[in-house]
Amino acid sequence: MEQLILLSESEARLRIGRLQALMRRDGMDSILVSDNANLLALCGRVYSGYAWIPAEGDPVWFVRRPVELEGENVVYVHKPENIPTYLTEASIPTGHTIGLEYDVTAYSTTVRLMGLFTDAKTVNASGILREWRSVKTPEQVELMRQSGVKHAEVYKRVPGLFRIGMTDHELQVEIERLSRLEGCLGVFRISGPSMELFMGNVISGQNADNPTPYDFAMGGAGLDPSLPVGANGEEILEHTAVMVDLNGNFTGYMTDMTRVFSFGELPALALEAHQCSIDICHAFMKEARPGVEAKDLYAMAETMVRDSSLERYFMGHRQHAGFVGHGIGIEVNELPVIAPRSRNILNEGNTIALEPKFVIPKVGAVGVENTYLITSGGAECLTVCSEEIISLV
Amino acid sequence: MEQLILLSESEARLRIGRLQALMRRDGMDSILVSDNANLLALCGRVYSGYAWIPAEGDPVWFVRRPVELEGENVVYVHKPENIPTYLTEASIPTGHTIGLEYDVTAYSTTVRLMGLFTDAKTVNASGILREWRSVKTPEQVELMRQSGVKHAEVYKRVPGLFRIGMTDHELQVEIERLSRLEGCLGVFRISGPSMELFMGNVISGQNADNPTPYDFAMGGAGLDPSLPVGANGEEILEHTAVMVDLNGNFTGYMTDMTRVFSFGELPALALEAHQCSIDICHAFMKEARPGVEAKDLYAMAETMVRDSSLERYFMGHRQHAGFVGHGIGIEVNELPVIAPRSRNILNEGNTIALEPKFVIPKVGAVGVENTYLITSGGAECLTVCSEEIISLV
Repeated sequence: MEQLILLSESEARLRIGRLQALMRRDGMDSILVSDNANLLALCGRVYSGYAWIPAEGDPVWFVRRPVELEGENVVYVHKPENIPTYLTEASIPTGHTIGLEYDVTAYSTTVRLMGLFTDAKTVNASGILREWRSVKTPEQVELMRQSGVKHAEVYKRVPGLFRIGMTDHELQVEIERLSRLEGCLGVFRISGPSMELFMGNVISGQNADNPTPYDFAMGGAGLDPSLPVGANGEEILEHTAVMVDLNGNFTGYMTDMTRVFSFGELPALALEAHQCSIDICHAFMKEARPGVEAKDLYAMAETMVRDSSLERYFMGHRQHAGFVGHGIGIEVNELPVIAPRSRNILNEGNTIALEPKFVIPKVGAVGVENTYLITSGGAECLTVCSEEIISLV
Repeated sequence: MEQLILLSESEARLRIGRLQALMRRDGMDSILVSDNANLLALCGRVYSGYAWIPAEGDPVWFVRRPVELEGENVVYVHKPENIPTYLTEASIPTGHTIGLEYDVTAYSTTVRLMGLFTDAKTVNASGILREWRSVKTPEQVELMRQSGVKHAEVYKRVPGLFRIGMTDHELQVEIERLSRLEGCLGVFRISGPSMELFMGNVISGQNADNPTPYDFAMGGAGLDPSLPVGANGEEILEHTAVMVDLNGNFTGYMTDMTRVFSFGELPALALEAHQCSIDICHAFMKEARPGVEAKDLYAMAETMVRDSSLERYFMGHRQHAGFVGHGIGIEVNELPVIAPRSRNILNEGNTIALEPKFVIPKVGAVGVENTYLITSGGAECLTVCSEEIISLV
């Protein structure tokens, strides 16, 4: 037998207490959670089942699989219909307003869950859960910090993996291997069914200008039209930029980090754009504080880009991405979003991947990406590694 | 500019014609598709947007990203609300019954899409789309055949990757690397938000008996509670079975394949169970024909297991899986399902992964898995590779 909750009592109380405070603020009496990312945030593990979170009092953990989990309020169920039966028998009130994960749970599943609570009104809890997950506890930050250290270690060893004549895909595979041997879990968690990626991307030379269907910062044609993003199997040529943007999921809490490598010297325009990206990151570290509006941080980046006359290349060339940063943690697209019309305001404990990038035709993609922790004194970098363009040879 | 549809005209007509025939059978006037797997099946690529499929006539391809796709009826849209506007302007009738992907699209997105069609009734198209995708065209079978050949090539080279003292995770990483260098796209597409896996599993020794939250055939503790499945980082010990079950997604159409390797001799019980698995696969090849009920194939497997008194170990030991086979193609959990209460009936063109497996405590998991094509003459194996237990040393 194993404990279901893998957090210390104080950490579990902190996480659930913060969610309950948001629920009480919004008048939500209870939430029924089943999304893997939300379950992981609640109890420190992924399981198949549901977590019943009341606005006051103790959660109930309804488990389908795995067998043999134990702990207070751990209840095995075969199907969701067992949940209201248990709550009634245990005299646990459901309240008037029950939140469900409307933005991630499929329509048919949601309708089935709505049918469980005929006396209550169901509402969308996705917004509250996103807001809750956007502020990390110190223990969650520590897990991201551990990912960041390993992530940086892997990137430092990239030049040792390069051989002249390699394709972008071959280099990517060697980095993947190294990362996996360092303990990377591989899985790249992302919210939304239209988004998919393997472990990340190595984008080299002109391929950086190929547009993708996905809402990522950068493109690339990919190896196959079934996954049209990233490395396309072409040889890495001299005087091109090689952008490495692989996921850093070593603990369930990911860091996002990009560095640029070059095979031979790059033209001045590429160097200038790369420096502009570094400058934006450094300005962000000063300006990104609790209370600052995310859209103002986007505007700051945009102004710096315009001042350098680099707007043609910013966040893409043939196709432009509409953001420059995003929250990250269990998933890669958490809050806040650093975008022109974002309504997010920064909070202490946010963890944000900032990725001011440029696509320079014929040269490739340049710019850095780091994961930052928002503190009262500004943004602290969790992915510490030289930001300059690193020579592969 | 690039063509949106990456299929020959006859192939596109065949695929869409088959879907339209099912729609007419069920009285569904049109379907609005946005799921990546369904889009890939319709046009041979993943894009961000929607496909409008009428029960009669030509589809309309509504694209958000990537830029610069072209072709007949390719229409760029910013948001789904542009769809009914376009259809009205183009005098394309929406019909009375519009199918949406209720089983895969999130509740909030579905409600938004429902709001586009106030004059029509929306219904669940997920069932029809699953049924449609369960029967592969000859070109789709060819893509699976190509995956199967590469998949088998990788497995044949596993013994060359093993070193005494390796952990299960280290061996897995070397197989992943080899597979990726052979062109594996890595991504393991699976329907359902509670299911997640990286590239598959290498399960060695006693770890095979650790239960997982996921609805996979086999378990394993994994490296981290955020992804509790598969290799757990322990050394591969002598006299244990090493089950290799990594995805074969080389073309967007995957094969699923498992082989067992051993480091030193295995006890008689494990060898017997492995032979029972091979026998079930061979019986399946004869019996799995169009018109056969999936549940009867499950019952056949179960009878063979009971006749060998192996039911304690069948499809798990501490935790048992409730199926022995599943459809496969773009996703790993397609139809038909070979399970006790399955209502599926086999069709020519189904592609099914059959995985009669056993967990033998202290020894590990044994049994094979192959991907089969259902033909009028029985099941043809697409993952051809020796089925015996292969020595690693």
